[in-house]
Amino acid sequence: GKVLVVPIDGSHWLSMREVLRELHARGHQAVVLTPEVNMHIKEENFFTLTTYAISWTQDEFDRHVLGHTQLYFETEHFLKKFFRSMAMLNNMSLVYHRSCVELLHNEALIRHLNATSFDVVLTDPVNLCAAVLAKYLSIPTVFFLRNIPCDLDFKGTQCPNPSSYIPRLLTTNSDHMTFMQRVKNMLYPLALSYICHAFSAPYASLASELFQREVSVVDILSHASVWLFRGDFVMDYPRPIMPNMVFIGGINCANRKPLSQEFEAYINASGEHGIVVFSLGSMVSEIPEKKAMAIADALGKIPQTVLWRYTGTRPSNLANNTILVKWLPQNDLLGHPMTRAFITHAGSHGVYESICNGVPMVMMPLFGDQMDNAKRMETKGAGVTLNVLEMTSEDLENALKAVINDKSYKENIMRLSSLHKDRPVEPLDLAVFWVEFVMRHKGAPHLRPAAHDLTWYQYHSLDVIGFLLAVVLTVAFITFKCCAYGYRKCLGKKGRVKKAHKSKTH
Amino acid sequence: GKVLVVPIDGSHWLSMREVLRELHARGHQAVVLTPEVNMHIKEENFFTLTTYAISWTQDEFDRHVLGHTQLYFETEHFLKKFFRSMAMLNNMSLVYHRSCVELLHNEALIRHLNATSFDVVLTDPVNLCAAVLAKYLSIPTVFFLRNIPCDLDFKGTQCPNPSSYIPRLLTTNSDHMTFMQRVKNMLYPLALSYICHAFSAPYASLASELFQREVSVVDILSHASVWLFRGDFVMDYPRPIMPNMVFIGGINCANRKPLSQEFEAYINASGEHGIVVFSLGSMVSEIPEKKAMAIADALGKIPQTVLWRYTGTRPSNLANNTILVKWLPQNDLLGHPMTRAFITHAGSHGVYESICNGVPMVMMPLFGDQMDNAKRMETKGAGVTLNVLEMTSEDLENALKAVINDKSYKENIMRLSSLHKDRPVEPLDLAVFWVEFVMRHKGAPHLRPAAHDLTWYQYHSLDVIGFLLAVVLTVAFITFKCCAYGYRKCLGKKGRVKKAHKSKTH
Repeated sequence: GKVLVVPIDGSHWLSMREVLRELHARGHQAVVLTPEVNMHIKEENFFTLTTYAISWTQDEFDRHVLGHTQLYFETEHFLKKFFRSMAMLNNMSLVYHRSCVELLHNEALIRHLNATSFDVVLTDPVNLCAAVLAKYLSIPTVFFLRNIPCDLDFKGTQCPNPSSYIPRLLTTNSDHMTFMQRVKNMLYPLALSYICHAFSAPYASLASELFQREVSVVDILSHASVWLFRGDFVMDYPRPIMPNMVFIGGINCANRKPLSQEFEAYINASGEHGIVVFSLGSMVSEIPEKKAMAIADALGKIPQTVLWRYTGTRPSNLANNTILVKWLPQNDLLGHPMTRAFITHAGSHGVYESICNGVPMVMMPLFGDQMDNAKRMETKGAGVTLNVLEMTSEDLENALKAVINDKSYKENIMRLSSLHKDRPVEPLDLAVFWVEFVMRHKGAPHLRPAAHDLTWYQYHSLDVIGFLLAVVLTVAFITFKCCAYGYRKCLGKKGRVKKAHKSKTH
Repeated sequence: GKVLVVPIDGSHWLSMREVLRELHARGHQAVVLTPEVNMHIKEENFFTLTTYAISWTQDEFDRHVLGHTQLYFETEHFLKKFFRSMAMLNNMSLVYHRSCVELLHNEALIRHLNATSFDVVLTDPVNLCAAVLAKYLSIPTVFFLRNIPCDLDFKGTQCPNPSSYIPRLLTTNSDHMTFMQRVKNMLYPLALSYICHAFSAPYASLASELFQREVSVVDILSHASVWLFRGDFVMDYPRPIMPNMVFIGGINCANRKPLSQEFEAYINASGEHGIVVFSLGSMVSEIPEKKAMAIADALGKIPQTVLWRYTGTRPSNLANNTILVKWLPQNDLLGHPMTRAFITHAGSHGVYESICNGVPMVMMPLFGDQMDNAKRMETKGAGVTLNVLEMTSEDLENALKAVINDKSYKENIMRLSSLHKDRPVEPLDLAVFWVEFVMRHKGAPHLRPAAHDLTWYQYHSLDVIGFLLAVVLTVAFITFKCCAYGYRKCLGKKGRVKKAHKSKTH
């Protein structure tokens, strides 16, 4: 079949790419649609790349999309940082929105896409634009995501989302919350609702303009037949789900290759102490010098060899046991038996590679869902979380020594690893199966809950409850009135009898 | 591993049996625990049968458990029939409860079970006794069920169950309901709650006595690690589910054998018109004569050969095209290309065999979830439902001719069949995988939602909402008071100024 792929740049693309490789191996043709300016999405032999022009330059892109990571290393007042992050988010979302307008109004491109009669659209709905496009082309759609902010993933699937035990994004609650944590869990989404609206409303109006009728974000998202979540219930807390949700967490672990000689040599040279892998992900290229030196200091105090993926300036106090590399085969290194620990920003890909390979973690979450991922792994005893701003060199040194020497971390992560890898179907095969399913059956209408056709008050049965209450109150009122009337009647009679009695006795 | 199996008699056992056969083939040992007196559960070479004595005879069993099916063919006032069914249900539940007391107080047997150190209990929780036993032996447990009345399956898994689009048992609503149907959907469970309590409370008190503390039915059921539901979303309406729910609908279709010569001969003799399979399931042995003759009359009016599984007296007007058999290989016959239609009571096993083999149905639901199953298949265009009491011979004749000659029924059931059979793992393999998973990991704690540890008002955040309301009201009250005070203050001043002004002007 023909697959139209509208990816999101960065690490999201790295795992989607594996699905395209497998789809190609099974005889399908994928066309990847992306702006000319991007970070990772380059031509490869297992898909056709179609780019479209947008009015920002590579520099603008780097500044808006990559520039923000500096912020996370700066110590400043919480509120100031909050507003600076919001300003950056807003910038980023304007950039994406502008490129969306240019895509959807690119008539030649839209005509070409329509003419190609794709069998399915595969996209990450964090890019709401792609979801609008899929609905506009009315092609059966498969979503491929970790999550969407503002619980739009649960609204889009009509999935119950009780706040009493499901921690909301950014709260760093676990699924067992105290009373005040549950209050915080309920208030956070309210506080963020303004930002959520600002983030999603532009796409709703774009869609409403395209469809010439009122279209909400939930309408856009509910078009998808199947949602492939890069999660599972080893990493995430168990919660209600819907039948068209498929869990493919750990799909990024599938891609294994033998280590190059360079890295084999590092490991062999590390002796009995083995190695530690250190990477803050593809989005963090520069750490402020002072912080980098504190980190380098701590790394120098452990006997393991540290492979540190870092493109910034080399800290002057870098110890001999620490090797800086521009890039490293993270998943393959974590799969080596000599790997003792993984220092990570707790992005979902990194955490899954840690789980797949059973390597305990020291986590320095920076932004987005990373704090929540770190909290979950800490709750499950698979690692230690450090606040990258406040941590001292000593904190990092202690944390590293703890996860390497305290056997409980290794046992916990190995238990999670064995639970995670014990599944009837591998994530990559499951993802490809459902893309093919949607192609074969032109969607999955039998998995679409009737809840999509209810208003919010019908969904919560408020109209039925109101009606029943009205009936009960009416019945109660009539009963009361009858009793009162009967009572008065009886009382009236007694009254007359008494009067008659009185007049007789006087 | 060692598997303790506590089955429910009747058709439930027939599909569980296939799982035991496969577990045995993979090297596991199953011990089946059942009362001496039962219908289907006999010694076989792929499990060990352990029976325990109970104080009712085979005759008592037949009378209480099988006797009730007569009731469904008798025409009488709805209320009279309702109360007779309740009386029978009560009888049946007393019989099961008495045998449960005898099982749980059979100390020698309990000691033996404890000593055998089973790795997992596999049971059907409709038999609440087995769920109590599993919790009492504190062995990791896998439930194998179609459903449990009174929504105990959704309560036991802490699974949201919105009544706005999920039809309740016995309502014969579809998932798209009118306002009044939604009112009915909300009222039915309330009306049945007394019966539900009567059905489940005895087991809660039995468990409380065993554990020497208050144990509710939900506590008993929440002990299970994984729930294997004999359902899927081709047969059932899509709805919220939980991660420890696995859907193995159609597991009974796996068991295929070539047809015997006898049945091959019937089919070959049927010519181009093919055959119709007719069975009202293992529980219905006798149909009132008048009704049987009406049915026989209708069957004689179609050109197909009818294979009718019926152990009752032979209707005198049986036509030549109708062959009575004591037993028939239902699934294998439905799998034959010459089979045109299936007359069934719409039990879930029969409906799945119809879906698996793509054979349209004429449905005569009798009791339990059969009416709801029939409604679902009718909504999906896969068959016609008849009320067995009110239907005339002509109704049956027309229904048969419709499903055989109107191509839409065949197209719809074939579409359902292709959706149903398009899955990454076969139901039998999936069921065995999860039994083995629970043995390997001593349960599935990572799939247990934290909701189990919340009270009902915490689950619905009523305490948090109450607290926030109190805070808002307090703030509003204080603000109001301040404004009122400020207002009075300002007014007070103006008042004094006016007075001073007045005294000057007079």
